[in-house]
Amino acid sequence: MTTPRKISSNAARRSEASRRAILTAAFDLVHEVGYAKLSIEGIAARAGVGKQTIYRWWPSKGTVLFDAFLMLSDEPDGEAALPDTGDLEADLKTVLRATVAELNDPRYDEPLRALNTEIAHDPELAAAYVERLDGPMKELKKQRLRGAQRAGQLAKDLDLDVAVEMLWGPLLNRWLQRSGPLTPEYADTIVETALNGLLPRR
Amino acid sequence: MTTPRKISSNAARRSEASRRAILTAAFDLVHEVGYAKLSIEGIAARAGVGKQTIYRWWPSKGTVLFDAFLMLSDEPDGEAALPDTGDLEADLKTVLRATVAELNDPRYDEPLRALNTEIAHDPELAAAYVERLDGPMKELKKQRLRGAQRAGQLAKDLDLDVAVEMLWGPLLNRWLQRSGPLTPEYADTIVETALNGLLPRR
Repeated sequence: MTTPRKISSNAARRSEASRRAILTAAFDLVHEVGYAKLSIEGIAARAGVGKQTIYRWWPSKGTVLFDAFLMLSDEPDGEAALPDTGDLEADLKTVLRATVAELNDPRYDEPLRALNTEIAHDPELAAAYVERLDGPMKELKKQRLRGAQRAGQLAKDLDLDVAVEMLWGPLLNRWLQRSGPLTPEYADTIVETALNGLLPRR
Repeated sequence: MTTPRKISSNAARRSEASRRAILTAAFDLVHEVGYAKLSIEGIAARAGVGKQTIYRWWPSKGTVLFDAFLMLSDEPDGEAALPDTGDLEADLKTVLRATVAELNDPRYDEPLRALNTEIAHDPELAAAYVERLDGPMKELKKQRLRGAQRAGQLAKDLDLDVAVEMLWGPLLNRWLQRSGPLTPEYADTIVETALNGLLPRR
């Protein structure tokens, strides 16, 4: 005989399976048809659920996509500390090259553009993004820089938020505006220029 | 008696007046109703022209908005050389503070977000943006940096494209993602951090 507890735990499992199916469908579809043509109907059909199931949990396609990214970042290898070999410049180049590779990956390009677009136009979603996705990632980046700063490898009075934005900002911007080639060499130049600064070093 | 030449010059004048009315209407409307609700019908009604007049010249509302920005940048004070007082740090702070003020101006905020969104999703428009709007502005910024570089105030081997992206990228990114406050002090910190670099200076 099934106890009420068991029923509700089965329901929770079914519910979690639907949730994952919906988020995976949203992520795959935005890549296949583009964000403009992404619809709640389309996501429901692909995930094999009713439209109402989606509307019960999410008010818009933008929030579905946001949770899809959140699910990806919750995966075991989604959020890890930055490499720390002791060579800050080499480690930063490794990480920025990985960012370049991700931005150039056709599987991520359209979903990431869609997410950025929604954030640009929706202050509430932007706040959720800063708090739940960008914030935790930024903290990992700052941890690596903080370690280097303590070891005397970075300027003592450096604002670590600004340091992170100086390393990743140009890259994200060039990708979003398609204003130049996004290559591993560009990632390296960003790291070298940010570390050394624009002024002459003697 | 009106000569054919006069007729066609009158027609050109009328046509130019319609063009300016359409572009001004698009710019004002996107600020008033938001980009999502901006429509060719709405622009036509506000500009006092027929819908077909707009479709004859522009394929989409994104291209209308792009030309509206182009018109703004063609105005006498739209594109000027960067200040050159001899003090590079002070001049860059002046210019970045002006950028902050523009991004915080409610009149520009929504139209600029819309333009960035369209660019992010439309490679053709992105190419036009790089060639006709961003490119010329970037050239003015590079001119100022080139002068400083020749005077020995900047590193000899500095990549000026990367330098410009390092100064303006973090700012645009913070604005677009709403990831932090956009203040004059932030503009100053960006300039100081970019000039000095993240490494300790001795």
